[in-house]
Amino acid sequence: MGFFSKDIKTMDDLFVHTLRDIYYAEKQILKALPDMIEKATDPQLKQSFQSHLAETKGHVERVEQVFKMHGVAAKAVNCPAIDGILEEANEIAGEVEDKRVLDAALIAAAQAVEHYEITRYGTLVAWAEQLGRNDCASVLQKTLDEEKATDKKLTTLAEGSVNRKAA
Amino acid sequence: MGFFSKDIKTMDDLFVHTLRDIYYAEKQILKALPDMIEKATDPQLKQSFQSHLAETKGHVERVEQVFKMHGVAAKAVNCPAIDGILEEANEIAGEVEDKRVLDAALIAAAQAVEHYEITRYGTLVAWAEQLGRNDCASVLQKTLDEEKATDKKLTTLAEGSVNRKAA
Repeated sequence: MGFFSKDIKTMDDLFVHTLRDIYYAEKQILKALPDMIEKATDPQLKQSFQSHLAETKGHVERVEQVFKMHGVAAKAVNCPAIDGILEEANEIAGEVEDKRVLDAALIAAAQAVEHYEITRYGTLVAWAEQLGRNDCASVLQKTLDEEKATDKKLTTLAEGSVNRKAA
Repeated sequence: MGFFSKDIKTMDDLFVHTLRDIYYAEKQILKALPDMIEKATDPQLKQSFQSHLAETKGHVERVEQVFKMHGVAAKAVNCPAIDGILEEANEIAGEVEDKRVLDAALIAAAQAVEHYEITRYGTLVAWAEQLGRNDCASVLQKTLDEEKATDKKLTTLAEGSVNRKAA
């Protein structure tokens, strides 16, 4: 979020601000994913990160579409939350040598990212509806559904093979 | 997470490291909640933050209990993720003047915190089970259930009154 003060006066301002926050977050995730793909060993995990990279490009476009529909500039604002989540992911990955343990750590890191997106998109959908922007809400809902599906897929991967191999 | 390198060799190390991460996170949340209670206007929201403060003290104790059960020192490691989430919560709260809009922003911030905890406790429960520590898993599961219930309560509050008053 920005560093200016008392800039958010209405729910509409708050909605736009949070849209700019997730816009920044999606772009940072887009930058972080190639490194996670490279680090992953389990082929299914690698594949899952690859699909998520393609999906994330679509999420950026959807946010841009909502900016347009809402008549505001597609701008990003700093988001210390995603910066912290990705910094932590990077640090933990740097501390693990064993490939199987690293896969388990990467899944946990990716799920932290997914949960951040789930909470922000959930909030944005609710606010869009309350502002009478059901059109924006339905675009954002599509991404929310995809983030939830990715989180579930990661849980299945973790429970099914990766953690068992690592334990 | 820490700044030392290749320190995590096994799934057990990763479990203990993540336990230390959530230990740090719970303590930071404990420090942040009184400010959120003070800022909240809606009486139900204020009350909900107050109950969560009491609950969070119990979560800290449960993590200490798991350290003891697992035979490791109760230590915290830096967690840039929760620092970022709380920094963002602070920044956004500073940018909103209107009390009703601030309540909506506070709920969104609290839900970002809850989702971070949900993902970390979910991971810890899965890893504890895979390490054959069902005793630790069941203690951590109690907190996971409480975090999920808090998140749901916040959604109900947001949908029921706070966002409507703010819109």
